[in-house]
Amino acid sequence: MSIHTVRKEQCHLAWDHSIPPILRVNSGETVTFDCLDASNGQITASSTVDAIKNLVFSQLDQVNGPIYVEGAQPGDTLQIDVLSVKPADWGWTASIPGFGLLADEFPEPALKIWKLEALDELQSGGAFAWFDEAKSMRIPLRPFCGEMGVAPGKPGAFSTIPPYATGGNIDTKHLSARSTLYLPVEVEGALFSIGDGHAAQGDGEVCGTAIETPMTVSVRLTVRKDRPYTTTPHFTTIATSSEEFYTTTGVGPDLREAARSAVRNMIEFLGTARDLSRIDAYLLCSVAGDLRLHEVVDMPNYVVGMMMPKSVLGTAENRATYRFL
Amino acid sequence: MSIHTVRKEQCHLAWDHSIPPILRVNSGETVTFDCLDASNGQITASSTVDAIKNLVFSQLDQVNGPIYVEGAQPGDTLQIDVLSVKPADWGWTASIPGFGLLADEFPEPALKIWKLEALDELQSGGAFAWFDEAKSMRIPLRPFCGEMGVAPGKPGAFSTIPPYATGGNIDTKHLSARSTLYLPVEVEGALFSIGDGHAAQGDGEVCGTAIETPMTVSVRLTVRKDRPYTTTPHFTTIATSSEEFYTTTGVGPDLREAARSAVRNMIEFLGTARDLSRIDAYLLCSVAGDLRLHEVVDMPNYVVGMMMPKSVLGTAENRATYRFL
Repeated sequence: MSIHTVRKEQCHLAWDHSIPPILRVNSGETVTFDCLDASNGQITASSTVDAIKNLVFSQLDQVNGPIYVEGAQPGDTLQIDVLSVKPADWGWTASIPGFGLLADEFPEPALKIWKLEALDELQSGGAFAWFDEAKSMRIPLRPFCGEMGVAPGKPGAFSTIPPYATGGNIDTKHLSARSTLYLPVEVEGALFSIGDGHAAQGDGEVCGTAIETPMTVSVRLTVRKDRPYTTTPHFTTIATSSEEFYTTTGVGPDLREAARSAVRNMIEFLGTARDLSRIDAYLLCSVAGDLRLHEVVDMPNYVVGMMMPKSVLGTAENRATYRFL
Repeated sequence: MSIHTVRKEQCHLAWDHSIPPILRVNSGETVTFDCLDASNGQITASSTVDAIKNLVFSQLDQVNGPIYVEGAQPGDTLQIDVLSVKPADWGWTASIPGFGLLADEFPEPALKIWKLEALDELQSGGAFAWFDEAKSMRIPLRPFCGEMGVAPGKPGAFSTIPPYATGGNIDTKHLSARSTLYLPVEVEGALFSIGDGHAAQGDGEVCGTAIETPMTVSVRLTVRKDRPYTTTPHFTTIATSSEEFYTTTGVGPDLREAARSAVRNMIEFLGTARDLSRIDAYLLCSVAGDLRLHEVVDMPNYVVGMMMPKSVLGTAENRATYRFL
């Protein structure tokens, strides 16, 4: 089995099937990508919030590739086995004005730089980043790539910011090592690209960013002609282990507003329970809290939950001083 | 600690603070409720689909109570510790015309009667219901009450079908034994009621019903004056154990349509992978699949996932004959 490598500068800034492939591989071969973070190197471990103010948006969310997979034809499925995902030893999370589920409530830019620790324990789940060491609040790392996609059949250049039926910026926390993603092939060779390293993220990525980080990722690319055609991404994943959650909910007739309410309620709760500023709580929701649709059928009202692992909110001893947990 | 009991006929059909309490308890006391299923006894273990055709909607979703909790005042929080939840030995799941996330695609009534097995192993997670024994497909039971709520401050009679900020039909699968629910008190005495036994359900309850069952449930009711006021339900819960999932997604600019697409894609996938009829797959999504908001920020497109535990789709040996899993 050949192993191919892709360098960090071998990237592009749009989904566009006219971009020539940088590499051709056989079905079943493995490719290792060295990827810059989603800021395309604009943010570093020593950046301040000025970096957010000065972000050049047109340079964001570059993806490495495209890879031409021999034999892939429109109507096939591309199977992407995620073999390993290794973050750098630092990451960043930002609230970028105009971006995020509560963008209207967080107009000011904010930036948090993280140190990623115990990376040699990544596989066993022991790697983490301190959110607040004094409060014993830490984020378990479960790295994945926010961007995995194939070129669209439709001609033209499509932004790498939104996700599409062909993947792209699907920002799905479940696509960590040992997961498998299936994407619909729309053009010959599939033209697969990847990027946007995330060291940790909750379902929703509510503030708009995860723990963004440079990443080395290895995937095996296999053309599947025997599977039913998937019109959108499918994937298999292993859920994280049993865990106690504190959950806030949003209840109402608009699903998006209910989701916003659930997040807003968690921000408020964390302010009271753990004395977090609103912006810190918002970033925490994005990197560690999961948005789930508890019920979508009891009309006219939906129930959306923002589920926060209690372990993230501090050790049991530390939390014991907070009677609300 | 006193233990109070409520009989199945001690129920009501609207959230309305003018309904007189059937019982007064002190804060911290436990109440055990004997509840009929959400059809209010209209569906039994021997029912056929005719029971769905003849459902009297005005009798559905009765709740047992209300319970007046001494000392509860508007602005307090009612803490509900779910101590035990015991389903009957049978349950039902239906697709009811006009009801459910894909109501427009499932116009015909359907009813499935379940036998609930190994109920003595409920606490250890061993209880289950066969979905299809020949295919080794079974649903793990994790019973909870779909309805838990307090009376609204606003005068009037409000349907028990939708959930509200004060709870009610929140249909939240996570509220099983050992979970704790917090509800905002809007009237003196809180006026708590409960019902709608579910033996198993996924996040979303997408077809509109869970494994509906008569239920005996014990809860401890505590007035909390020291907590921050919650404007919507909050809860703590223990997540189920590590599990492998197969997930389909919906991607698009409308959150509800993306959720519908994710469910539709799972139905289609289950048709191919496990030879299920569309209606059977729809019911399975409702009782065992979880709707999660993977990303809500990469505008204009959302990604919603329908996550199905692979264990539900059959044993590994059995699934091995299906190359898509």
